[in-house]
Amino acid sequence: MTDTRPTACLIVIGDEVLSGRTRDANIQFLGQRLGELGIPLREVRVIPDDRRAIVSTLNEVRPRFTYVFTTGGIGPTHDDITSECVAEAFGVPWVLHPEAYAEMAADYARRDPPVEFNAARQRMATMPLGASLIRNAVSVAPGFRIGNVFVMAGVPKVMQAMFEAIAPTLEGGVPTVSRTVHASGVFEGTIAAPLGAIQAESPGVSLGSYPYYRAGGSGVAIVARGTDEALVEAAIGRVAAMLRAHGAEPVFGEPA
Amino acid sequence: MTDTRPTACLIVIGDEVLSGRTRDANIQFLGQRLGELGIPLREVRVIPDDRRAIVSTLNEVRPRFTYVFTTGGIGPTHDDITSECVAEAFGVPWVLHPEAYAEMAADYARRDPPVEFNAARQRMATMPLGASLIRNAVSVAPGFRIGNVFVMAGVPKVMQAMFEAIAPTLEGGVPTVSRTVHASGVFEGTIAAPLGAIQAESPGVSLGSYPYYRAGGSGVAIVARGTDEALVEAAIGRVAAMLRAHGAEPVFGEPA
Repeated sequence: MTDTRPTACLIVIGDEVLSGRTRDANIQFLGQRLGELGIPLREVRVIPDDRRAIVSTLNEVRPRFTYVFTTGGIGPTHDDITSECVAEAFGVPWVLHPEAYAEMAADYARRDPPVEFNAARQRMATMPLGASLIRNAVSVAPGFRIGNVFVMAGVPKVMQAMFEAIAPTLEGGVPTVSRTVHASGVFEGTIAAPLGAIQAESPGVSLGSYPYYRAGGSGVAIVARGTDEALVEAAIGRVAAMLRAHGAEPVFGEPA
Repeated sequence: MTDTRPTACLIVIGDEVLSGRTRDANIQFLGQRLGELGIPLREVRVIPDDRRAIVSTLNEVRPRFTYVFTTGGIGPTHDDITSECVAEAFGVPWVLHPEAYAEMAADYARRDPPVEFNAARQRMATMPLGASLIRNAVSVAPGFRIGNVFVMAGVPKVMQAMFEAIAPTLEGGVPTVSRTVHASGVFEGTIAAPLGAIQAESPGVSLGSYPYYRAGGSGVAIVARGTDEALVEAAIGRVAAMLRAHGAEPVFGEPA
């Protein structure tokens, strides 16, 4: 069954993720939220703070996915080059956004102790011509949308607030439903054949098998995913029965 | 200064990462270890357990990077399709690897309680023709190398053991050195201009600026990265002096 829902691609922009300094948290958040909105996340790219990499990646993926999200590189420092690269990718001028400028100027004017709305901060109000703002309650600097590309902050708290501002504007599809069953003391290799048989007889459901290793006992977790809850429930029920038939004790939900 | 070192690309294969079920840990580990080996990680792709996605991604990236690493999809279940997709990408037959088969058969024969070396487990000994094994002490099923592609497990503990088996065989470059200084109570926007000036006068060093938010106080961490330790040390020293000149108390190292 072909999935005809809208699709999403995420571009994580950041030397700090590639160098291993920072463990990304945005992939997981967006994967979950986009699944709930029926816009499955189909691909993620992690790329450096490098103009050529950003421009070419943007232009490669934006015709291929319904929505493209970026995280990172929209702050005030010299390594924040996402915004100007998006302008270059779209072939539009990179200009002061009057609304962003006015809102940021007003915000900084209210600060006590005073914070200067200096050139570096004004840069955060500079955007591709035609961009519309993505406001958020956590940070004064906005993200923006242009075409099907949504440019967000890299700091998870700010990114999440921006995403929730965007979410109601996205045209979603049928949400992805997932159910998990796990059983300790079971090896994947032992149940691979019957699990494959259940997969073959469960069109519209995708079964994933994930071994887990815990101090309290290792085992395997089986996740059923799909857009039809009844089919997903039926498939996970068959998996549970199969695990029981193999002498295991299936427990619904993820292992603790 | 152009970085002429060998480069790495990582392909994370897994529906469970894209759906947000699993928060990937392999990007961070490999980013750090590859940096230490002087083989900077330049790009990561996270893609689904999908034949077309795997084959096309492999063939797109393997001419572009010195080394390509994959994680995930080499277990015994129906959703483990990485190995056969690598064979297809290289245009070679997917065949039983005699050594892998013999070693796995011997291992399973020793198990008590007995574990059958069944068809699903034998599938883990099936590899692209010409592949060489990547053994590890954690799991009996090997990864493999073919051309510049290294195929590893997705489970972090197993992946890490496989990577350490590979590491001595990789032709590395000058290791990436990084130094960090942080200061609480400092806004990025306040120091953006002097930081940019230090960056402009520090060829061979890349300065990254990362705000942090902690219950105990927020601030900014500046990371200097490069291959020449003296240049990196000099740059981070200038950053510390600049922070001090702005009334902050610079502390070397990452914020706790």
